[in-house]
Amino acid sequence: MGGPEIDRLAALLARLPGLGPRSARRAVLHLLKQRDALMRPLAASLEQTADAVQPCSVCGNLDTRDPCSVCSDERRDRATLCVVEEVSDLWALERAAVFGGLYHVLGGTLSALDGVGPEDLRIAGLVTRVKDGSITEVILATNATVDGQTTAHYVVDRLEGIGVTITRLALGVPVGGELDFLDEGTLGAALKSRRAL
Amino acid sequence: MGGPEIDRLAALLARLPGLGPRSARRAVLHLLKQRDALMRPLAASLEQTADAVQPCSVCGNLDTRDPCSVCSDERRDRATLCVVEEVSDLWALERAAVFGGLYHVLGGTLSALDGVGPEDLRIAGLVTRVKDGSITEVILATNATVDGQTTAHYVVDRLEGIGVTITRLALGVPVGGELDFLDEGTLGAALKSRRAL
Repeated sequence: MGGPEIDRLAALLARLPGLGPRSARRAVLHLLKQRDALMRPLAASLEQTADAVQPCSVCGNLDTRDPCSVCSDERRDRATLCVVEEVSDLWALERAAVFGGLYHVLGGTLSALDGVGPEDLRIAGLVTRVKDGSITEVILATNATVDGQTTAHYVVDRLEGIGVTITRLALGVPVGGELDFLDEGTLGAALKSRRAL
Repeated sequence: MGGPEIDRLAALLARLPGLGPRSARRAVLHLLKQRDALMRPLAASLEQTADAVQPCSVCGNLDTRDPCSVCSDERRDRATLCVVEEVSDLWALERAAVFGGLYHVLGGTLSALDGVGPEDLRIAGLVTRVKDGSITEVILATNATVDGQTTAHYVVDRLEGIGVTITRLALGVPVGGELDFLDEGTLGAALKSRRAL
């Protein structure tokens, strides 16, 4: 309905995470109702952002500056490095405002199934950064999945002998989590790491 | 995170129906990963669609042609007119491929609360179309909500005396619907309109 332009726009929008074919059509109508207030500004913003944003050459974050705003923030603790899989993980930690150090984005996880090897990730860059000497602790914040943990183990091997403390995020019951809905892996980990009150 | 361009793009995307602030951020990362395959084409498509699409001067549908592709399709039954609230309703009926007549999009519903009066909707145009004479049946397909039904009653009043058959969509149990989950209004309507087997 509405001609090939609308079909094409709906098809492109449907490729965004969180939008399916139906909600993409709804989004097209919403945009057409707000042509000057939303549709054209969105087009311009997409184009500008595509031009302006680059991966940070230090940590792999996406930003309009290089080094990125995190790496170039002088108030941050330069001795603690948090290793994450994806830029989205970095952003999640920044949103939570619970970490004041620097990051290193691997750009994925090792995966034999998908043919992702160490050379496909930002692992050599990580080793170089850690060897440079100002870092005293590396926190492995890969996902608590099989691929995430495999990658974490590989990174530990590669950092062996450099003389930094290597830690990883605690496993346990998420805040607000109900035991009834948690898997046995989480419950087992939470029990094993129980703390005295 | 990521500079003002990313913040602005995320804020614009978050205004699309179906995307919140979090999924908008995820969408930005998804777009940045596919700059040439998705991000720039989407920017161009938004701009082109904003330029090309206009409301149909006959029925109010949105299309790149005027009269729209429904109104100008000679195979459609020109004696039956289906009145809907929004273009999205027209598209939903077209997707379902259950109706072969023409449409009239009101552009909303009467609403005392939101200050929407008859002059804010495409009602005068509807009356003119029906008076022109080739239409024999007007199907009221406004939503089964208070505002939708109020609007339908008002339209019935305005079409009184022109001498066309006026019908409305049946109320009842939706196909696949479970009685247990339906409200009493729907159950009551379904019972009242029960049919002999």
